[in-house]
Amino acid sequence: MASDLENLRLSLAEKQAAVEKQGDVVRALKASEAKQSDIDAAVSALQALKLELHNASKDYAALSGAANGNVSNETFRKEVNNTLERRFFIIPSFQIYGGVTGLYDYGPPGCAVKANVLAYWRQHFVLEEGMLEVDCPCVTPHVVLKASGHVDKFTDLMVKDEKSGQCYRADHLLKEYCKENLEKDLLMSTEKRDELKHVLAVLDELSAEELGAKIKQYGIVAPDTKNPLSDPYPFNLMFSTLIGPTGLLQGYLRPETAQGIFVNFKDLYYYNGTKLPFAAAQIGQAFRNEIAPRQGLLRVREFTLAEIEHFVNPDDKSHPKFKDVADLKLLLFPREEQMNMKDPVPTRLGDAVAKGVINNETLGYFIGRTYLFLITLGIDKLRLRFRQHLLNEMAHYACDCWDAEIECSYGWIECVGLADRSAYDLKAHTEKSKIELIAREKFTEPKEVEKLVIMPIKKETGRFFKGDARKVEEALEAMSEPEAMEMKERLESEGQVSFKVCTLNKDVTINKNMVSISKTVEKVTGRSFTPSVIEPSFGIGRIIYCLYEHSFYTRPSKTGEEQCSVFRFSPVVAPIKCTVFPLVQKKEFDARATELSKQLTRAGLSCKIDTTGTSIGKRYARTDELGVPFAVTVDAEGVTVRERDSKEQIRVPAEEVPSLLKDLCDQQLSWEEALTRYEIVGGTNTV
Amino acid sequence: MASDLENLRLSLAEKQAAVEKQGDVVRALKASEAKQSDIDAAVSALQALKLELHNASKDYAALSGAANGNVSNETFRKEVNNTLERRFFIIPSFQIYGGVTGLYDYGPPGCAVKANVLAYWRQHFVLEEGMLEVDCPCVTPHVVLKASGHVDKFTDLMVKDEKSGQCYRADHLLKEYCKENLEKDLLMSTEKRDELKHVLAVLDELSAEELGAKIKQYGIVAPDTKNPLSDPYPFNLMFSTLIGPTGLLQGYLRPETAQGIFVNFKDLYYYNGTKLPFAAAQIGQAFRNEIAPRQGLLRVREFTLAEIEHFVNPDDKSHPKFKDVADLKLLLFPREEQMNMKDPVPTRLGDAVAKGVINNETLGYFIGRTYLFLITLGIDKLRLRFRQHLLNEMAHYACDCWDAEIECSYGWIECVGLADRSAYDLKAHTEKSKIELIAREKFTEPKEVEKLVIMPIKKETGRFFKGDARKVEEALEAMSEPEAMEMKERLESEGQVSFKVCTLNKDVTINKNMVSISKTVEKVTGRSFTPSVIEPSFGIGRIIYCLYEHSFYTRPSKTGEEQCSVFRFSPVVAPIKCTVFPLVQKKEFDARATELSKQLTRAGLSCKIDTTGTSIGKRYARTDELGVPFAVTVDAEGVTVRERDSKEQIRVPAEEVPSLLKDLCDQQLSWEEALTRYEIVGGTNTV
Repeated sequence: MASDLENLRLSLAEKQAAVEKQGDVVRALKASEAKQSDIDAAVSALQALKLELHNASKDYAALSGAANGNVSNETFRKEVNNTLERRFFIIPSFQIYGGVTGLYDYGPPGCAVKANVLAYWRQHFVLEEGMLEVDCPCVTPHVVLKASGHVDKFTDLMVKDEKSGQCYRADHLLKEYCKENLEKDLLMSTEKRDELKHVLAVLDELSAEELGAKIKQYGIVAPDTKNPLSDPYPFNLMFSTLIGPTGLLQGYLRPETAQGIFVNFKDLYYYNGTKLPFAAAQIGQAFRNEIAPRQGLLRVREFTLAEIEHFVNPDDKSHPKFKDVADLKLLLFPREEQMNMKDPVPTRLGDAVAKGVINNETLGYFIGRTYLFLITLGIDKLRLRFRQHLLNEMAHYACDCWDAEIECSYGWIECVGLADRSAYDLKAHTEKSKIELIAREKFTEPKEVEKLVIMPIKKETGRFFKGDARKVEEALEAMSEPEAMEMKERLESEGQVSFKVCTLNKDVTINKNMVSISKTVEKVTGRSFTPSVIEPSFGIGRIIYCLYEHSFYTRPSKTGEEQCSVFRFSPVVAPIKCTVFPLVQKKEFDARATELSKQLTRAGLSCKIDTTGTSIGKRYARTDELGVPFAVTVDAEGVTVRERDSKEQIRVPAEEVPSLLKDLCDQQLSWEEALTRYEIVGGTNTV
Repeated sequence: MASDLENLRLSLAEKQAAVEKQGDVVRALKASEAKQSDIDAAVSALQALKLELHNASKDYAALSGAANGNVSNETFRKEVNNTLERRFFIIPSFQIYGGVTGLYDYGPPGCAVKANVLAYWRQHFVLEEGMLEVDCPCVTPHVVLKASGHVDKFTDLMVKDEKSGQCYRADHLLKEYCKENLEKDLLMSTEKRDELKHVLAVLDELSAEELGAKIKQYGIVAPDTKNPLSDPYPFNLMFSTLIGPTGLLQGYLRPETAQGIFVNFKDLYYYNGTKLPFAAAQIGQAFRNEIAPRQGLLRVREFTLAEIEHFVNPDDKSHPKFKDVADLKLLLFPREEQMNMKDPVPTRLGDAVAKGVINNETLGYFIGRTYLFLITLGIDKLRLRFRQHLLNEMAHYACDCWDAEIECSYGWIECVGLADRSAYDLKAHTEKSKIELIAREKFTEPKEVEKLVIMPIKKETGRFFKGDARKVEEALEAMSEPEAMEMKERLESEGQVSFKVCTLNKDVTINKNMVSISKTVEKVTGRSFTPSVIEPSFGIGRIIYCLYEHSFYTRPSKTGEEQCSVFRFSPVVAPIKCTVFPLVQKKEFDARATELSKQLTRAGLSCKIDTTGTSIGKRYARTDELGVPFAVTVDAEGVTVRERDSKEQIRVPAEEVPSLLKDLCDQQLSWEEALTRYEIVGGTNTV
């Protein structure tokens, strides 16, 4: 399957090259003013090649991505989403009122998966790394998000249908126009083709004016009505609200949880015993009032973020536990490989940091931990890559940035952002709040530091400047080192200098005997600095959606008449750990099943009892669709336990069932080991 | 302590009675036109009694409530809150910008306590009761909250300072005025006293006009500026926002999580196999834009709710597990006891339901489960009562309503609401959405049901009414049973009747031969109905705050020079389960401590290592203040484990520490049992 796809991709590249080569031929013939018949022949050859390319592209698109049986991305996605909605993993919110775009509800199994993912996140990050978890409100006052830059910059460019008022993202419309034309217009000139490709490449950097000009130039209209569009203008993505009854305190719903941590830096630093590095973490809702949400669960208006802010000395970003992840090999997609159109390659994390591909150990450590987190959940490691931001993608203050991208039917989706944000946020809040958000470093040994000493000779300045003396003295003391050293030099050579005193708004003359300027050496025991922040930020909903796609498969039912859907959830994330069935409807079996299910619940395993009379095969299919890893069946001979994916069954003494399942679900025991301990029965034939 | 308080309360009641009696004497003397000197003497005796009453009230207030050492409520509260803020359990949000009233952050220990409380809630309710948990967005469109009644009725009455614009809750100002005057004005006439008492009693029922009139009558002004106040007007407590970029879709932040469950009823019912009863649950943020938040953590603008909606057949509110809680004895405060000014009494739940004090078994079952939940967390069962709503407190649709109230320094605080909301919510959403939110009951045996059959004789109506015939027929068919039976009777006696056809906007004459009206008996196998909802709704923040107060105590430090604060958290809620100390700073001890702490973390126990060089006593004090139940100390001779409240210590082989602590924290083993298994060392003397 994968190699089919690879062959198709290679053939596609060849066809692309052939089209380009033939284009050159046509251009050369035209330039050399060749015979018209030769030109015509070359053009029709070009058209044939373009058609071939077009068909090959379609084949490739149909086969790529899903890599899941012989189905297209769209078909596969539809199957997954049908199952997700049918089994109430997730459904559009407020459906009885027609729903609201971009808002979704987690139903019981979805809610359990989410709770499991978050519990594991807490164990893997907060507990194991000793992070300081905080919990801040969603409602945030204007001043905080003004300081962070969100009020001014957290915008998308929007265009409005001039008649209906419907809103669109300007870049989306332009992107769709370019993509569609590149795909469909086979006779497009190479110049035009290059232009559209260039637009796609620089799309994210276009200003409102540039976007507007392109939209006008290409005659792009509103997709739904074909009405003309307004000029693009920035639309702030924060939900806005008013705090308190006066209507005077502007607030927003937080667009990320990070700011709640930054404004608490001082208290967190003290809580940690004024020691660096340390990490704070927060799990919570975030809100973005998307202009036109699409891609189902991937771009929504309210979502759960799990964010870490790791505060570190900017001069020392080493990490004591980096060695624990240094040998991990994962798909890295550095900036350079992207620019040269290469593919991501499996790279040893230790090498990537050593070579400077990843900026520092701490960032590398979190990339490794994120990798482990995601694959433990059940993300396919072959469809997980870490892509470095291109220079133009990165915020100006960031020093390195990697996205954990997971491939699903929508393509490669950013699910975790790992950014070294330098000292930007703490500095911004320090400036706005006037509260210093800094750390203090104690040197292991005192350092000798040269220090400038400016000492006005007050007797002289007083005598000379009278009432203005104090302002002159203050201005002298406030000189920067270069200014002071220049004055010292000129006073020594010329005896006096002219000096501007801003607070007096005039120049005065300073004589040699009015000020002493010197440098001394001092012993310094430490220094204050603004810590750097390394931020891994997890989009929980996106991770869960990709997990659904990676866990989904179908297999024929027992009779072979229909396809059954299965989620191959690991016990860590499975919404229900086991189902308990009485084999047939019988009072005695029901009672034993109820007792077993009570014991399992008491052992902390979420379990479901199914005493409906439907056939055991149908009941297995139902539980497979929910991704329940184990099914416990009570019959006349005792109890059997079935594993979902292998469909193998073992006979287990009733009293051992709770502890066996606890061990299997805590992954203290593998199914393979369990098979060796108990009698294997029936096997795959029975269902 | 408690009996001191009881004595004081009795003496207070006596003094109150004496004042009232003497008041009667004065009035009688005046009425009988007695000698002025006799009247004067009686009046001055009355004044003396009033003064005594006033002083006794003050003594009682100073001593009551906290019941925690010899401190007043205010002092005790201040101590608790100092510790909570100092150790970063909770702090006002956005403090570097001056904070926002009513918004708080949970710092690391507070966040851990909250996560533990929620995890235990999930185990105790969702898992053990097999509830369907859902997770819906905070952003909610107008239509949902219009249907639920929140848009129109979720308001408080507000008055504004007419000059400064500052806002106040009208009822709060009136309440304070009455309370203050009742306390301070000792010479107030009995009439006035009775009036103010009456106002306090009916405060919640006053309309805007009545409140405004009282405020005017008493000359109440703005407390901060003494400016005049506006008339009261309703202020909606929902935070309002706009969804999407067009500005046309009005939304709110949900004021409760329940509505997300109601609008999903249909899907939940199907998910549950179309069986009743079942319960859905949701944990999430809710928002109320309070006019003037006060009482610290008890009245905030954003908070976590954990809500259960138990859907049940209105004709059968029995609960199969009620017997599991029937023998619980808890403090019930029924309506009648409140009206007769009696105290709550310990009552067996089974008796309360049998006597109809609690409306039904299901409501009783949840009261019992809530009781168990709260006392397992660590709420003092002597300061937990279940108070029934008075008839005027209850929503008109509710059929019974109890609040779990916990006593803290602010008085008795509603922390859990347990309401039988009947079918109100599902009916409201059915009406607004036109989607039927109903359940179907299958009778165990088919029932015979009388059915009305109205059959227009179309040949006759057509002949007579021509083009209007269809409308006449439809109107006939739409008659209610009483209308139809009346028509049948009159047709039989009079041969014809006049009949109003609304769609024709006129009366027509119906003859006997135009319609056949009869009743038949049908066999019916089931019926459709709107389920009733029983809703336990938990204010998680309030519960946690009360838990802090109930867990807090102080004890002298080793030297006796200062008081140390301790939280006696049970391992279920303790933010950190154990601290690991090397006894003295030594590389070897540090390494062993680090290894131990790793093992504990791996066992899923949150633990903290403290390798600072401070004295062991100070380190114990630090960990006591965080409510850490166990401290593990590594020294030359091995490892000791100390229990926080008894300060007892045992020596434990290092390799047994993780499993011992796991058993202690999972409450599989009590500390008393542990004492019998290991050597007791040092004891309370060492710290």
